[in-house]
Amino acid sequence: MSIETAEKPKIPRTDRGRRTQRKLLDAAAKEFGERGFHEASISSITRRAGVALGSFYTYFDSKDAIFRALVVDMSEAVKTAARDAIGTETAPLAVERAALEGFLRFAAEHKEIYRIIDEAEFVDPASYRNHYETIAERIADRLSQGRAAGAMRSGLGEVEAWALMGMNVFLGLRYAIWARDGDPDAAEIASAANALLARGVGK
Amino acid sequence: MSIETAEKPKIPRTDRGRRTQRKLLDAAAKEFGERGFHEASISSITRRAGVALGSFYTYFDSKDAIFRALVVDMSEAVKTAARDAIGTETAPLAVERAALEGFLRFAAEHKEIYRIIDEAEFVDPASYRNHYETIAERIADRLSQGRAAGAMRSGLGEVEAWALMGMNVFLGLRYAIWARDGDPDAAEIASAANALLARGVGK
Repeated sequence: MSIETAEKPKIPRTDRGRRTQRKLLDAAAKEFGERGFHEASISSITRRAGVALGSFYTYFDSKDAIFRALVVDMSEAVKTAARDAIGTETAPLAVERAALEGFLRFAAEHKEIYRIIDEAEFVDPASYRNHYETIAERIADRLSQGRAAGAMRSGLGEVEAWALMGMNVFLGLRYAIWARDGDPDAAEIASAANALLARGVGK
Repeated sequence: MSIETAEKPKIPRTDRGRRTQRKLLDAAAKEFGERGFHEASISSITRRAGVALGSFYTYFDSKDAIFRALVVDMSEAVKTAARDAIGTETAPLAVERAALEGFLRFAAEHKEIYRIIDEAEFVDPASYRNHYETIAERIADRLSQGRAAGAMRSGLGEVEAWALMGMNVFLGLRYAIWARDGDPDAAEIASAANALLARGVGK
């Protein structure tokens, strides 16, 4: 059931081609997010995108291929959302706070991301693992920078990066995907998580 | 595709019945863990369990029903593993360390738990959500106790509970499920995570 082929995504040569490919990816996010991989269909994706069915194959070889491209695209979107939220912030703890707040806002606006990434565990395990390994490496780099800047202690590495990623993913699950009336807002959640990161739970 | 029915699990009246139900649940863990929900079959579960096919229905109404019972059973097993690891430990931070170390060892020995719980997101969303909400409540209770014992600061609540759960789940994903040669062992990982919890990443 997992995606076996490893062909590279097709790169459109024109702006118009890039726009059509973008439309197909956005439509695929809705389609896979609402219906799941197995129920999703290429014809429904092209219909949502307002693109002729035959054009689909100019951009993607198969449903598997667009799903795999979508996981990569969403990984990129998460990275961009965090980077935009970080902006010109340079203080290491403030960077983590901004990255989490940006992620929480992104996830609230793109709730389908959890279902799609989580379904990748079954449909495309290599992309699923790559998604998290890539984010963990990025966080580990930021922790190194935090140490270099004198704002974080030494000895922080892969364990702490995975711990921090897990915090962020589960805060998104609870407060973006399973949001409830009366919940704290993204800034408050990021602030509480940042206090945990800055000084732990100790007195 | 999600499980709609909400019948209660059947409770065997005899020790022998309970043993057979246990065998079926253990076989279902292997079957769902290896093949996934959709490919799994009742006949393969009974074959693995060494139980006659017809007997299955004495204990479960359907494949959906045994999957749902298995998610509940695994939630209980995670709770028991953490509780056993905590043992007579009472210092709040030591309790968290022991609970994580116990969970990491449990997950390494029952790697199928991630696939089954994660597939519940698609097959049985209510059980998936209930699994994490229940754990988060348990962690929030421990944080309250930590505060009452004077070992943790005030203001810790649901946000910190979900953050801590996410840390533990992702450390299990990386170090129990995706274990690599040369990784730190469960005690070292729990120790690093506990330092993060105790004092954060600050200098």
